[in-house]
Amino acid sequence: MGTQSHDQYRENIAGRADVADTPELVEYYKQLADLKTGALWTVANKIEPWQPQSSSVPVLWRYRDLRDHVLRSVELVTPEKAGRRVVYLNNPGRQDVAAAVGWLYSGLQVMHPGEAASAHAHSSSALRFIMEGRGAYTIVEGQKMMLEANDFVLTPNGTWHEHGVAEDGLPCIWQDGLDIPLVNAMEAGFYKVHPDLHQVQTHPIDYPVGMWGGTALRPHHIGWDKPYSPLFKYQWGLTYEALQRAAKAADGSPFDDILMHYTNPLTGGPVMPTIGASMQLLRPGFVGKAHRHTGSFIYQVAKGKGYSVINGQRFDWQERDIFCVPSWMFHEHVNTSQNDDACLFCFNDLPVMNSLGLYYEEALAENDGHQKIIS
Amino acid sequence: MGTQSHDQYRENIAGRADVADTPELVEYYKQLADLKTGALWTVANKIEPWQPQSSSVPVLWRYRDLRDHVLRSVELVTPEKAGRRVVYLNNPGRQDVAAAVGWLYSGLQVMHPGEAASAHAHSSSALRFIMEGRGAYTIVEGQKMMLEANDFVLTPNGTWHEHGVAEDGLPCIWQDGLDIPLVNAMEAGFYKVHPDLHQVQTHPIDYPVGMWGGTALRPHHIGWDKPYSPLFKYQWGLTYEALQRAAKAADGSPFDDILMHYTNPLTGGPVMPTIGASMQLLRPGFVGKAHRHTGSFIYQVAKGKGYSVINGQRFDWQERDIFCVPSWMFHEHVNTSQNDDACLFCFNDLPVMNSLGLYYEEALAENDGHQKIIS
Amino acid sequence: MGTQSHDQYRENIAGRADVADTPELVEYYKQLADLKTGALWTVANKIEPWQPQSSSVPVLWRYRDLRDHVLRSVELVTPEKAGRRVVYLNNPGRQDVAAAVGWLYSGLQVMHPGEAASAHAHSSSALRFIMEGRGAYTIVEGQKMMLEANDFVLTPNGTWHEHGVAEDGLPCIWQDGLDIPLVNAMEAGFYKVHPDLHQVQTHPIDYPVGMWGGTALRPHHIGWDKPYSPLFKYQWGLTYEALQRAAKAADGSPFDDILMHYTNPLTGGPVMPTIGASMQLLRPGFVGKAHRHTGSFIYQVAKGKGYSVINGQRFDWQERDIFCVPSWMFHEHVNTSQNDDACLFCFNDLPVMNSLGLYYEEALAENDGHQKIIS
Amino acid sequence: MGTQSHDQYRENIAGRADVADTPELVEYYKQLADLKTGALWTVANKIEPWQPQSSSVPVLWRYRDLRDHVLRSVELVTPEKAGRRVVYLNNPGRQDVAAAVGWLYSGLQVMHPGEAASAHAHSSSALRFIMEGRGAYTIVEGQKMMLEANDFVLTPNGTWHEHGVAEDGLPCIWQDGLDIPLVNAMEAGFYKVHPDLHQVQTHPIDYPVGMWGGTALRPHHIGWDKPYSPLFKYQWGLTYEALQRAAKAADGSPFDDILMHYTNPLTGGPVMPTIGASMQLLRPGFVGKAHRHTGSFIYQVAKGKGYSVINGQRFDWQERDIFCVPSWMFHEHVNTSQNDDACLFCFNDLPVMNSLGLYYEEALAENDGHQKIIS
Repeated sequence: MGTQSHDQYRENIAGRADVADTPELVEYYKQLADLKTGALWTVANKIEPWQPQSSSVPVLWRYRDLRDHVLRSVELVTPEKAGRRVVYLNNPGRQDVAAAVGWLYSGLQVMHPGEAASAHAHSSSALRFIMEGRGAYTIVEGQKMMLEANDFVLTPNGTWHEHGVAEDGLPCIWQDGLDIPLVNAMEAGFYKVHPDLHQVQTHPIDYPVGMWGGTALRPHHIGWDKPYSPLFKYQWGLTYEALQRAAKAADGSPFDDILMHYTNPLTGGPVMPTIGASMQLLRPGFVGKAHRHTGSFIYQVAKGKGYSVINGQRFDWQERDIFCVPSWMFHEHVNTSQNDDACLFCFNDLPVMNSLGLYYEEALAENDGHQKIIS
Repeated sequence: MGTQSHDQYRENIAGRADVADTPELVEYYKQLADLKTGALWTVANKIEPWQPQSSSVPVLWRYRDLRDHVLRSVELVTPEKAGRRVVYLNNPGRQDVAAAVGWLYSGLQVMHPGEAASAHAHSSSALRFIMEGRGAYTIVEGQKMMLEANDFVLTPNGTWHEHGVAEDGLPCIWQDGLDIPLVNAMEAGFYKVHPDLHQVQTHPIDYPVGMWGGTALRPHHIGWDKPYSPLFKYQWGLTYEALQRAAKAADGSPFDDILMHYTNPLTGGPVMPTIGASMQLLRPGFVGKAHRHTGSFIYQVAKGKGYSVINGQRFDWQERDIFCVPSWMFHEHVNTSQNDDACLFCFNDLPVMNSLGLYYEEALAENDGHQKIIS
Repeated sequence: MGTQSHDQYRENIAGRADVADTPELVEYYKQLADLKTGALWTVANKIEPWQPQSSSVPVLWRYRDLRDHVLRSVELVTPEKAGRRVVYLNNPGRQDVAAAVGWLYSGLQVMHPGEAASAHAHSSSALRFIMEGRGAYTIVEGQKMMLEANDFVLTPNGTWHEHGVAEDGLPCIWQDGLDIPLVNAMEAGFYKVHPDLHQVQTHPIDYPVGMWGGTALRPHHIGWDKPYSPLFKYQWGLTYEALQRAAKAADGSPFDDILMHYTNPLTGGPVMPTIGASMQLLRPGFVGKAHRHTGSFIYQVAKGKGYSVINGQRFDWQERDIFCVPSWMFHEHVNTSQNDDACLFCFNDLPVMNSLGLYYEEALAENDGHQKIIS
Repeated sequence: MGTQSHDQYRENIAGRADVADTPELVEYYKQLADLKTGALWTVANKIEPWQPQSSSVPVLWRYRDLRDHVLRSVELVTPEKAGRRVVYLNNPGRQDVAAAVGWLYSGLQVMHPGEAASAHAHSSSALRFIMEGRGAYTIVEGQKMMLEANDFVLTPNGTWHEHGVAEDGLPCIWQDGLDIPLVNAMEAGFYKVHPDLHQVQTHPIDYPVGMWGGTALRPHHIGWDKPYSPLFKYQWGLTYEALQRAAKAADGSPFDDILMHYTNPLTGGPVMPTIGASMQLLRPGFVGKAHRHTGSFIYQVAKGKGYSVINGQRFDWQERDIFCVPSWMFHEHVNTSQNDDACLFCFNDLPVMNSLGLYYEEALAENDGHQKIIS
């Protein structure tokens, strides 16, 4: 520690620490350090901030910038050597934990027809959102599901899972979303490679959708006791229809217009205990107001174009672009088209924030609810 | 009580009451009666049976028998005088409580185009399953829903609700299902007539379907804190498609083939706390095995034809017929068509049996799981 | 049915049935009856009452009236012949179902030192509240518990259980409370005699209290997945101390002063899914106000004296007296001592009313919240 | 990044990343970095470890080492300037987040008679375990509670709270436990100073114990809708008695002997959503076996002496010593006295691990379940 200052966090406010360094105190601090201790007042104001200050920064990753690099990985590495050919999103404020924002990991993966990654299981939870291609499939616990653009699929904590593309398909790119950084931070990361490298397919194609994909229906003769959704696969077509129906039935939220959370149909709760997902529709010309809340959010533009203002910074987006909103930053969304709707897929750590009782939100009061754009 | 016997329930089994009347005991019983008490051993074997003995009997109500009588009520009474023109199903064993089976009420109601019943609310829970006609609607808490054949709609405990048929519709007949006998038995029946006789419609048509009718989706910006489903209306088309998908995805139950419970999408549980509902599909040629369980069940044939054996008695049914299965009676279902599937709508008191921890079931062991038909 | 009137429930109110018998209608009613059906409007006003009308009547059973009769049963019948020597409480309005009130059964049982009833199990749930004697014990699922006056013990749905009195004890009398009438009404009553007539004791005396009887503590290394409380035995001493502490800490309820529900410590909910229990303390001179609610309630005076006004009728009670409050009847309690507190043990079907969403309550508005005493 | 290696995490195992740096790849990595992205295979093996590797180290903080330093803070800083006079425990592996282990903060606080810290509220959850002194009190949401040695008290997320020592008391030292590092990591930390610096006391002393401190009892007339326990104060006397009763009633766990979790009496679950607490009793001569599990644990020796082996390192402890067990490290506890029992208080993040589905455990299989001591 040497000559380092111990009083850089002083605040002259009743109830806050405001102790100046003195030679006697500095000597005392040294003695404490030798005992693997410290004086709280030297760090109290730092570790008890008045409100959250995210270490992540808002980022927009434009698909037209990334796509070629993703495709190029096919030439550069084999699936056997790389495990998975993924370009991951690396928030400048979270490079130490390889996170896209907060404790969420995300990456773009590419696979060619006939390729199949080996099966593995981990204590992280994952989802996969299809961006382009044809013939993508995922096998989870012996259940094979075919996937198309804007579908998404769960590969939850502890499940054997593997991805591939059919021989007669087209090159596929999808976005992976995982809670790897969170699970590592919680020091609970386990990883296993499947002993046979691939699972046996034990059910007909799209079995989970067949059994659990009805509207407000539960099959009588099969049970479920896992903490994640038995549906696994969430289809774009049905989701988009539901959003359109809701848009006709009612006004939406001033912040998010028509936003639907994907649920575990057995609980109405989130699809997995640590990751939530949603799809929202911004009607033509929708201009949202700003609010902020805790939690970390990664968006992919599933349809349309527009912009979002995050922490005073404007990000213009179009289909397939990805952007993030860090905790407690004001954000507002706009659909710039007067004719077409825009849809944003999002995954986030809302289930964590809710489970831990740490979700807070606040609308922007001033300026009629709109941020001043500073960049 | 007089000279009445007090020992008619004797059983000569260790652990059971086996006390013969004596003059001394009969005198004692008289003294107890004067104190509003009795001797347990005179009734113990009666009130603690070895297994349930339902007071209901199995009944098949054939629609071709009932339809004319239902329609004739239109000529006989006005909605103003009758309240509702309903022919109710009156189980021979449950006439004292006007139940179709157990503690469940059911009736067939008819309404002509342009007619509208007045709005009311009660502590009973109700559902309505459409049998024929065009233009039927139900308004629940200001939310108007249009209904077609095989759709069903909830009017739960405490909600303002009213039914009608559009001016340009056709005469409509539907089945009502309520827990009136249960609520009366629990001595919790309340009834209110709407002060204005009709509700104001506060939402666009089919609003609940618009907001809550997606597949595994939950709208973000509206809340729900009621113990019943916010969806209210369950559509035949979507349900039948889901049953067909499930029939392709997997084997069904040996007793019920493909059976789906209608759920509250927010909980995965039953649509109302006291009444459950399901639709099941029997594939062409399906021959079910027999089992029995506690709870009372009322079926309506939504599609196809076949028969059920209930407590050894065969009941042949076709579309629109209604039949009941009393508690703890063996039953098995057969689809007699080799080409067409058959569908059975059912409502029941399963949620009650489950809440109270009183659900038990048992497969028939002997005779390869089939009852001997005794009538 | 013959010449019986079908229009005795007419009400001349919009929204209610008001159809007079005519020859044509009576003929129609006959045809309906032949088809096991009826016309709803002939019974609608009866089965949909404006508010509950309990078939039970309020009763006070004075212990000084009953005690001798209970003791005399020892001379009159053996445990082997009688099963259990019990004088049961037989509400004049509920004799058909042997209930003390609503769907609750209660009786006073006597056992002499050295006697032991045989073990059985049933789908009814039961509790036992000790009134007098020494050395009473109950064994539930191999767990033996010793019981003293004002203790109570659970013998839930499905558990093997048996009662006895130690060789060196004194004659014991206790109150049994069961949901037998409810379980019969739900047609879910099963009964088994233990194959060996008695259980093997598998745990040290009072094991459940040792493991689960702490204050807000849960043992780490044993699990529990039953719907009832693992504590089984609830001790008077601890309960009375807690009531006294609460009486010092705060004002009580205007209706019930200090009332504590016995809980399942793992859920905070009722001790069993179908029967709740509570102990309440009325401070010296407490004069309660009147309210009414749905549900059926049986009280035993655990301590002190006073009176209750139920449905306008005054019942003066003292220690060990038992009385009942039927559904939706106004009731108010008074402790007539200015020096001593009074305590009322109660068991009830509140968990049922809550599970089914049928609990309603209402304070008496007029006359400063006190009923006019009419008898 | 410059000349930095990108292939330091290679593993030559099927299903793992094993890509050597090449000039072409290094150039590709640079391009990715410019786009705020990276190649997953360069970090995959690092961020997906085979099993958890905690960044915390096991530490024993001996009270005889710390006590004088804690007391000396009274001379060195005023409460007004310091906020709180606390020596916090600073794990060598977690200095960046001021944690004692994992994401848990802990410190020793001292207060003199008549001193009172100002009231504040924060989104962190906290508890306070009394070590020595007399007259300590805590006020939470207007409820003042008196505290003695080995009592502990909750000051949950969002509650106004303040601590003090009575004028006629003795200097008090206690251990604080908070989830500050977790809440900061989740970017959800809010802090407020009470506008009047002190709360108004709105309830009699120890009101929560009066209302909620019974054994398996719930007050009827007050509600509770918070996610934390309404009891707040957990008393040593009652807890120790319960542990002793359980020690007589049954064998304990081979790892922890008799361990009781403090609960929210309304749910049976943890006292707060993010922090669990327990007290365990090691019987005289108890020699525990080793196991490991995820989650972070801080122990204080409430009574007796013994040692724990953590990750192969032996730590001898006596009353008031504090030690930590990091995630997934084997640990075993021994009571070295043959006559006296030993008690360990513990607080931990088990509720977090359970909510997120990240709790795993494993017994040590080899060497009869005992670690080899390596230091």
